[in-house]
Amino acid sequence: MMEMLLRQCSKEFLHFAACLQPCRLQHCGQGHGRPGRFLVSRLFQPANLWEDRELGVEGRQGELTCRSQRLMLRAGLIHPASPGCYYYLPHTLRAVEKLVRVIDQEMRAIGGQKLNMPSLCAADLWKRSERWDLMGKELFRLRDRHNGEYCLGPTHEEAVTELIASLGSLSYRQLPLMLYQITRKFRDEPKPRFGLLRGREFYMKDMYTFDVSEEAARQTYDTVCQAYCHLFERLGLSFVKVRADTGSIGGKLSHEFQLPADIGEDRLLICANCSFSANVETVQAGEADCPECHGKLTETKGIEVGHTFYLGTKYSSIFSASYNTPQNKPAVTEMGCFGLGVTRILAASIEVLSTEDSIRWPGLLAPYQVCILPPKKGSKEEEAAGLVDALYDGLGEAVPALRGEVLLDDRTQLTIGKRLKDASRLGYPYVIVAGRRILEDQPHFEVCCQNTGETVFLTREGVFDFLRNVQTV
Amino acid sequence: MMEMLLRQCSKEFLHFAACLQPCRLQHCGQGHGRPGRFLVSRLFQPANLWEDRELGVEGRQGELTCRSQRLMLRAGLIHPASPGCYYYLPHTLRAVEKLVRVIDQEMRAIGGQKLNMPSLCAADLWKRSERWDLMGKELFRLRDRHNGEYCLGPTHEEAVTELIASLGSLSYRQLPLMLYQITRKFRDEPKPRFGLLRGREFYMKDMYTFDVSEEAARQTYDTVCQAYCHLFERLGLSFVKVRADTGSIGGKLSHEFQLPADIGEDRLLICANCSFSANVETVQAGEADCPECHGKLTETKGIEVGHTFYLGTKYSSIFSASYNTPQNKPAVTEMGCFGLGVTRILAASIEVLSTEDSIRWPGLLAPYQVCILPPKKGSKEEEAAGLVDALYDGLGEAVPALRGEVLLDDRTQLTIGKRLKDASRLGYPYVIVAGRRILEDQPHFEVCCQNTGETVFLTREGVFDFLRNVQTV
Ligand SMILES: [Zn+2]
Ligand SMILES: [Zn+2]
Repeated sequence: MMEMLLRQCSKEFLHFAACLQPCRLQHCGQGHGRPGRFLVSRLFQPANLWEDRELGVEGRQGELTCRSQRLMLRAGLIHPASPGCYYYLPHTLRAVEKLVRVIDQEMRAIGGQKLNMPSLCAADLWKRSERWDLMGKELFRLRDRHNGEYCLGPTHEEAVTELIASLGSLSYRQLPLMLYQITRKFRDEPKPRFGLLRGREFYMKDMYTFDVSEEAARQTYDTVCQAYCHLFERLGLSFVKVRADTGSIGGKLSHEFQLPADIGEDRLLICANCSFSANVETVQAGEADCPECHGKLTETKGIEVGHTFYLGTKYSSIFSASYNTPQNKPAVTEMGCFGLGVTRILAASIEVLSTEDSIRWPGLLAPYQVCILPPKKGSKEEEAAGLVDALYDGLGEAVPALRGEVLLDDRTQLTIGKRLKDASRLGYPYVIVAGRRILEDQPHFEVCCQNTGETVFLTREGVFDFLRNVQTV
Repeated sequence: MMEMLLRQCSKEFLHFAACLQPCRLQHCGQGHGRPGRFLVSRLFQPANLWEDRELGVEGRQGELTCRSQRLMLRAGLIHPASPGCYYYLPHTLRAVEKLVRVIDQEMRAIGGQKLNMPSLCAADLWKRSERWDLMGKELFRLRDRHNGEYCLGPTHEEAVTELIASLGSLSYRQLPLMLYQITRKFRDEPKPRFGLLRGREFYMKDMYTFDVSEEAARQTYDTVCQAYCHLFERLGLSFVKVRADTGSIGGKLSHEFQLPADIGEDRLLICANCSFSANVETVQAGEADCPECHGKLTETKGIEVGHTFYLGTKYSSIFSASYNTPQNKPAVTEMGCFGLGVTRILAASIEVLSTEDSIRWPGLLAPYQVCILPPKKGSKEEEAAGLVDALYDGLGEAVPALRGEVLLDDRTQLTIGKRLKDASRLGYPYVIVAGRRILEDQPHFEVCCQNTGETVFLTREGVFDFLRNVQTV
């Protein structure tokens, strides 16, 4: 009976019934779909909190901290939960989401297809690859209510290979197949440290590729490496790609993408003469000369932000992940796997780009591109406050790419100087101030480009033209 | 020494060094940033696979399945991993990401700020709220290498309240504060079933709100409920908002948002006379009359897709989450929490919108909006194949909102009929066929609107004009 009634019900009726309830009465339609202003006074962005307080779980335990950890804690970008686990506060999450979009673009550009695999991985899969034992204490392990054994996936070679095997119907025409995910990963680090650089819970992009032959797989390997190069270029990060060890993942060929940095935990050897560079792990002890040109190797430290592996058939033969050849015979597929540390790239960027006091972001990833500072209440410039509001309101119209990217620091009880200092600490690429020249006949805004250190004075139209060049994602 | 060398190195040098390595040699610059065509033949989208095979872990165990689970397995949208854990294959992930964008828009529109909390939650937090015991076997529990106890968060009242408490500096001016996250959650369901409707690992949007008073908190509660109404309206879903039990979360007031469906696990009572509706759990046994108008209550079943709670100070008093009043005195904050089952909304939509054979999506969420079918190889219409290619290539230019939303079903060895059937099963909202009228002097394409059942014949410009009205996110 109710069944029938419901079938007769139009969508409107049901919604009407729902909306007769309290939720209908207030706020109806208000603001929906058109976000209002982004006001600094309303942000959950607890800057300065950590100035005189403890530095979080790791800091408290007297362990090493690093610049990015200190800056991110202090600016209210992250907050410690348990060792190696952080709350990502809103600014950080915005930057992470931007990085994810850049990675998506680069992976799609080479034909990557995005999926999502469970975090809970059945022990059985890991036992078949023998990594259940090999990974030791780095795996978080747990049992469900039926006593089934699982680990929390730190990486998904087993899972993806099992997926391909159980579908059992790949055609050679579909290869190379490039599947990737961007998900939270887990690793029970013996010593989580350096904030987001070495955590126990972190975001990683992991791509798995399937090819018909070693030759094809090596070509795919190069394609993905090239996409990584392109990604780091777009982020404006200096990086080195070094020969690397294959570690517990295994395989025949491996490279790391490293950002050179004092606090890096990897030691790299770079030839000044030719293009050779390698993680010291791959070089025999005592070897001081470049194996390719016999030039001198110099050592530096790096933060590993990407790792690529040509796996061969290590996993595909265990799980029987095969494809059908043109002759319609099954053949084992050649695999590669390719990791990018998403949250680590973010922290490493801050590590290498920032000053001692002020965060600097890769331009594309800054949580907000622009911060506008209206004049202080009671100041001479206050009479021009309307111009600043109009600039803020007009910007989204004039430069659509900046919609949602512009903050208004409405804390006009504070001086411009104090707010500029906050903006500098947080590293918005463009800070716009209504300074003295706002009172000229032809009012000029002061635009501080924090990533270059330049300051320019521009009219309203000049600001719009200038900001049209900002790259966003 | 290397230190110095590196400091001298320009970004270009480092990248040069990197790119001398193999990755430079192939594919350089090719396709970057400009995705190519989306070809059905290249998709990892194993349709039909499940036609004659097992229905996955739950299906195999002889348990109940439902329409969305059957359709999603069969169409290669999901693949079982372990009980209640699924691989989300590319089509599904695209739909999930769209739903996330819609939710983000709605949450931002009411002032929500997005953050991200760890999945690993320290046992201590849950012991303080006494839910460590209360949750029983539903919590996944584990220990780290130092024997520290954790659970995998099914919800984050404890974590967010502890965050607010430990920051310790909210001002009344910042309230209402509305924090939310969209992350993977874990729940050790006794009987995972119905595919993504009741899994052990799933995506949820959880929002937590903080207010100065009960009155303000109730107003915030209404605001969020209104945003939920708006969300379901935008998705074109019929829903009911019913009075609900507060369960293990606790609090003073609660509602569920339900999609009426035969396989729903909740029993709802709806008054045909007034606006009253309630989960049967909240009604005394034997009560058959509406408590508000004494009209007759009729029962239906629903799938819970959202749940809202006004919590009062249940958590904030335990964790001492307070704010500073205008008089600069600390006061305990009033809380609300608001869940939306992200993957569940997706599966429930498919459940209620699809036919026995064919998936139908809320228009906004369809993985691709348009699928274009070029003529069969060797058919009479093949001479018009160029027109179809040109339509495909021109569409992104003519309708920018559809960039990346258009598939080309290049499997021209198959008949149009066979490919139409696949397109119908997968439920792309608009399917464009080069049928007979493509050979007319004024060539016409056939546009099938799968959500309405309409078919229209349009010229190239007509197709563009028609598709400009498609809503995307
Ligand atoms: Zn050399
Ligand atoms: Zn009634």
